[in-house]
Amino acid sequence: MTAKKRIGPLFTDLYELTMAASYHGHQISSAATFSLFVRNYPPGRNYFVAAGLEDVMKELEAFSFSDVELAYLESTGQFKDNFISFLSGLRFSGEVHAMPEGTVFFPGEPVLEITAPIIEAQLLETFLLNKIGFASMIASKSARCIHAAQGRPLIDFSLRRTQEQDAGMMVARSTFMTGFEATSNVLAGKIYDIPVSGTMAHSYVTAFNSEEEAFRAYSRTFPENSIFLIDTFDTLEGARRAATVALEMKQKGKTIVGVRIDSGDMVDLSLKVRGIFDAAGLAEVKIFASGGFDEYKIAQTILQGARIDAFGVGTKVGVSADAPYLNVIYKMVRFNGRDVRKLSPGKATLAGAKQVFRCLDTDGRFREDAIGLRDDHIENARPLLEKVMENGKCIKSPPPLKVIREKFKQEFSRLPEDIKSISEHKIYPVHLSKRLQKTQEGL
Amino acid sequence: MTAKKRIGPLFTDLYELTMAASYHGHQISSAATFSLFVRNYPPGRNYFVAAGLEDVMKELEAFSFSDVELAYLESTGQFKDNFISFLSGLRFSGEVHAMPEGTVFFPGEPVLEITAPIIEAQLLETFLLNKIGFASMIASKSARCIHAAQGRPLIDFSLRRTQEQDAGMMVARSTFMTGFEATSNVLAGKIYDIPVSGTMAHSYVTAFNSEEEAFRAYSRTFPENSIFLIDTFDTLEGARRAATVALEMKQKGKTIVGVRIDSGDMVDLSLKVRGIFDAAGLAEVKIFASGGFDEYKIAQTILQGARIDAFGVGTKVGVSADAPYLNVIYKMVRFNGRDVRKLSPGKATLAGAKQVFRCLDTDGRFREDAIGLRDDHIENARPLLEKVMENGKCIKSPPPLKVIREKFKQEFSRLPEDIKSISEHKIYPVHLSKRLQKTQEGL
Repeated sequence: MTAKKRIGPLFTDLYELTMAASYHGHQISSAATFSLFVRNYPPGRNYFVAAGLEDVMKELEAFSFSDVELAYLESTGQFKDNFISFLSGLRFSGEVHAMPEGTVFFPGEPVLEITAPIIEAQLLETFLLNKIGFASMIASKSARCIHAAQGRPLIDFSLRRTQEQDAGMMVARSTFMTGFEATSNVLAGKIYDIPVSGTMAHSYVTAFNSEEEAFRAYSRTFPENSIFLIDTFDTLEGARRAATVALEMKQKGKTIVGVRIDSGDMVDLSLKVRGIFDAAGLAEVKIFASGGFDEYKIAQTILQGARIDAFGVGTKVGVSADAPYLNVIYKMVRFNGRDVRKLSPGKATLAGAKQVFRCLDTDGRFREDAIGLRDDHIENARPLLEKVMENGKCIKSPPPLKVIREKFKQEFSRLPEDIKSISEHKIYPVHLSKRLQKTQEGL
Repeated sequence: MTAKKRIGPLFTDLYELTMAASYHGHQISSAATFSLFVRNYPPGRNYFVAAGLEDVMKELEAFSFSDVELAYLESTGQFKDNFISFLSGLRFSGEVHAMPEGTVFFPGEPVLEITAPIIEAQLLETFLLNKIGFASMIASKSARCIHAAQGRPLIDFSLRRTQEQDAGMMVARSTFMTGFEATSNVLAGKIYDIPVSGTMAHSYVTAFNSEEEAFRAYSRTFPENSIFLIDTFDTLEGARRAATVALEMKQKGKTIVGVRIDSGDMVDLSLKVRGIFDAAGLAEVKIFASGGFDEYKIAQTILQGARIDAFGVGTKVGVSADAPYLNVIYKMVRFNGRDVRKLSPGKATLAGAKQVFRCLDTDGRFREDAIGLRDDHIENARPLLEKVMENGKCIKSPPPLKVIREKFKQEFSRLPEDIKSISEHKIYPVHLSKRLQKTQEGL
């Protein structure tokens, strides 16, 4: 699943293959550079977080058509034998420049550029957009939640409502990468080595004759690790019953981790539930909340004084509900030694292979970015794109997820506070280098 | 991918497993019935279309833990040896009642009910919600597009922006099931036997020295099947160049299929482009449009008089952008011989194993539905849930996709026109049977 499985070259739009057939038929095989970037800000976003590169590198290194895949293409009747035979020997031989995962970026900035014989570079389009687009969209949404939670732990609960399976895996990865503590997704725990978390659903409580009996039974099975769900019937009654069982456990030297509230007025309920536990001498019992949380509801709940120790964050983050797609595009910017671009209304692109330069303030904060030509040199600025593949092979190993997570934390602390806002649209300054501008005028 | 690959029992929330461990520890193993339904209408929806059942049946029949999966669970340190050993022998042994794919349904109506020993039924929750929820959400969005297009062909172009890979596969399946003509997704074409479609991107045009040269080159490769993309530089100029090449082809007895417009004012451009081709004696050349289409933009474009013969429909349908998740839930409604429910504020559920009855008008139109107990009998009404699995085995083969597609077309023609509206929220009448109501009062 995701990281481990081969996706294969048929995961593509047909036109990538018909264009390839036409290039092949006309012996067009020069090198092309394609640039992948997000065109504009979706509603409510001030920045993005790059993700998905590890899967990209694995897939590109393994790129090849199997016999079964070639047989299918042949069966469509659209392709000539000599093209099918060309595809059978095709491997990715190009070079990839990319922002490392966890890099903060902005619209118009290339996250990834591929230079390869035009057919290879073209065939990868659909896969690259799908992979980098979704992983980065969720990382961006997740970073907003981390900011809103002001240090309170967040746990990914999204799996049941993500858009199919792979999405659920990538959500667990992108949210952990940007600072979530754990996921409920067991398979993601296994594949990505992310801590897994979860205790009980309402069905568990209703399977027993009483709520108290359910809590007691659960605490016998998991004496070290119980979180009771207290809103199946009445949240405050549930809290009192949980306190009763917690006190019984205390007598045996055990302590429950906490309780979870999944519905109702979170501010009011959390304060009252806190009161019940504090009055019972159970100040150590934590309050978890879940149910419709995203950055907005987290921020509002905290602002209104809720006593919530950790949030389960699900659906709205798992599908990035307020901005469920990024306008991520992949455009040819150089071909056969000349810079190229399209001029379609509202969709014009900048020609030339590029680099993104980040200028820092003296205190290390991000001040502004410049998009330049690949071989531009800009004083006191850090280039963000690194060469990660050459001749079709990875030349840098993808870092472990926990290392990316640590690096993101550093990066994010350098992003100006106003850009981190979840309520106001603030534009981070990005300009074009003089040489890049000149290149466009010359076309 | 999707239909073909095993997903496996670790694709689940951890709490399904901790609850299972607790049931196992307390020797709780009675049969439970769980009911899967959509809680409410998302914005702008009047109905849903059931999808995803074929994958569900395959996965349930194959349900088992591999040694590697068990080893991972053991490594978490949360589970006792005798539970792991219990899991190693676990298979799905229950029964499944479900609405056939392509059935129109409404909030509160169970789409699927599972009766099985409680641990089995519980462990399936996350997978079922994920699978049925997404497939049905896209089928519902897609049906709205079909309605808006008033018979004009639609083609799925969403793959590059779906939320990861599996989603792209399911979008191709759900859109074809509800009436799309084809998909750009080559892998979906292979796996689901859906017609694949696509010709060229802007990059193809910019790879040549001129637009005209690009069109000519493409027509040489695909003399029977060319659609020229005409908006790379200027749409009307592009149309004239396409007409020039189309006339050259006509002299050789060939004809281009059409042209595609991907940006700009679709109404104005389509009328002008139509004029250019008609004036050139090329009335047979079709106009395809793509770029941000969903049911709203399709309807508006047609209303304003655009001359568009077919639509490429992408991102906004592929992620169901205006309603990117369904509140799909899976609740225990019966356990150990008694009906059960939860009362959480705003999230109360109805106890009891159920059936949905559809009452038709004399002309065959849907008049109203009744949600009843499983063994209710309602005069002149068609029960919608069918038993599809028994003792863990499929007792009905899933029909071929093309058969579901045909069946949906029939069903959809019987849905009242006002419920099909994409602009007005109209509520289809659904009531509870007397016996079901009585059951709730008795609890």
